[in-house]
Amino acid sequence: MSAFVPKDPNYESRVRAVIQLQSAMQTIGAGIVSVKPGIVQLQMPFDPRFSQQHGYLHAAVGTMLVDTACGCAAISLSPAGFNVLTVEYKVNFLNPAQGKTFIATGEVIKAGRTLTVCSGTVVAVKEDGTSSDIASMLTTMMILPG
Amino acid sequence: MSAFVPKDPNYESRVRAVIQLQSAMQTIGAGIVSVKPGIVQLQMPFDPRFSQQHGYLHAAVGTMLVDTACGCAAISLSPAGFNVLTVEYKVNFLNPAQGKTFIATGEVIKAGRTLTVCSGTVVAVKEDGTSSDIASMLTTMMILPG
Amino acid sequence: MSAFVPKDPNYESRVRAVIQLQSAMQTIGAGIVSVKPGIVQLQMPFDPRFSQQHGYLHAAVGTMLVDTACGCAAISLSPAGFNVLTVEYKVNFLNPAQGKTFIATGEVIKAGRTLTVCSGTVVAVKEDGTSSDIASMLTTMMILPG
Amino acid sequence: MSAFVPKDPNYESRVRAVIQLQSAMQTIGAGIVSVKPGIVQLQMPFDPRFSQQHGYLHAAVGTMLVDTACGCAAISLSPAGFNVLTVEYKVNFLNPAQGKTFIATGEVIKAGRTLTVCSGTVVAVKEDGTSSDIASMLTTMMILPG
Repeated sequence: MSAFVPKDPNYESRVRAVIQLQSAMQTIGAGIVSVKPGIVQLQMPFDPRFSQQHGYLHAAVGTMLVDTACGCAAISLSPAGFNVLTVEYKVNFLNPAQGKTFIATGEVIKAGRTLTVCSGTVVAVKEDGTSSDIASMLTTMMILPG
Repeated sequence: MSAFVPKDPNYESRVRAVIQLQSAMQTIGAGIVSVKPGIVQLQMPFDPRFSQQHGYLHAAVGTMLVDTACGCAAISLSPAGFNVLTVEYKVNFLNPAQGKTFIATGEVIKAGRTLTVCSGTVVAVKEDGTSSDIASMLTTMMILPG
Repeated sequence: MSAFVPKDPNYESRVRAVIQLQSAMQTIGAGIVSVKPGIVQLQMPFDPRFSQQHGYLHAAVGTMLVDTACGCAAISLSPAGFNVLTVEYKVNFLNPAQGKTFIATGEVIKAGRTLTVCSGTVVAVKEDGTSSDIASMLTTMMILPG
Repeated sequence: MSAFVPKDPNYESRVRAVIQLQSAMQTIGAGIVSVKPGIVQLQMPFDPRFSQQHGYLHAAVGTMLVDTACGCAAISLSPAGFNVLTVEYKVNFLNPAQGKTFIATGEVIKAGRTLTVCSGTVVAVKEDGTSSDIASMLTTMMILPG
């Protein structure tokens, strides 16, 4: 599916550097699952510090994880020396964010010179190993020098 | 502007209870600025634990604050005994989330029986007192018993 | 992929009836390509009456086709006697809407009792047979009796 | 409210030219209500050729009108010789699109060098003169030379 060819052979180390520079990722305990050209997968554990009124993960924390996954997917296809900014995103919440671990996947749909469009998903994995889709994202990223 | 009449005279205490139940709000240091029928304003300080790679607030943390503000605005117009869930949101990021304090306003556009549509904004206030709009949200909330 | 089981065995005739009742579909020359449980594909020819200032198809006409495809995908999984209304949609435009024929696919991501979430795409097919993705949609539909 | 200063004194004639070049606007009978820097208002009559299955205006036709209003609002603040493309939009549908006339207003929220963010609304005016909000849009436009 992903027929994307990276413009920068060091794309993976650039993605890893961005994750390390985002203190928000450390704070929520996020880690990298995999980095491929145009597809980045991140995960985080459930953390009761980030719950909403029903005790589930706050919708926007899953959004944070998948926003970063999509941004990293965009970076993975950008030329060396470029960074990304989130222009906008739209997220649908599909099921309660109830789980032990959350896995976000960001995938490039269209890589443009200035703008890159990505889709993303968040999956909740429960104690018993079952999983459910909890969010679906469609987002626009801007590719910027620096 | 807000010609909304609350269905529940205790709307304010219900909004305050939701904020207290959301541990995510405590974790990011969020507090209530004001609660009016159909309009809720929240604030939070800048916190370097939630920054992205440029040192600004991570886009999704502002989203968390304004998502909760919109949810509370929806609750403020809902009947007693009802709660809300975020169905979906869309956010545009307008300026770097650089500031000392962030103020999110959630406002009901249309209060329906099952679905309520809200708009929201996030403003960053700098040390020198100047402010800039950093995000604009359009969101759908579901009104549920319980 | 589509493991959706229709609640109404007559789902296809209900989808076809909706298309026929939408005079907008006749006006833009839309036709059904295929109807499966949870996935509906529609097509329309390029029509210079619906172009924008560069002579391409107006973005919102492709939106009309894929909105209807998504609505029909939602109907295909709804119980007999139910209809759908578009709650909201978000569309990213990926490439110029330049082509001879446009094919929209609407697919259910999550079928709920009250709300159904769909994703959609529009592909432009050129005279020479090549095609390109021109739009990507994420949308919420409401399932209503009647 | 609109403190926008146009970069091109001929902004109004450029907006009018874009409307005239969009054959889709002629086809749906759209006309200009007003053009101010950063705010453009368009209208169209109800036309049964563009209805959906309940006999109301198809959601995407209102979207077409407000998309063009937002695009024109973005053009009104762009430098001479520039045009706009819709990057993406999100629309919430608030009430049935039932009316005699539809009025769309597009307004710039943030005018950037490359991207401009607009909000838009569509109002339905009935035979008896009453009106209701039928749609709310949040959209990103790209400013391009040519």
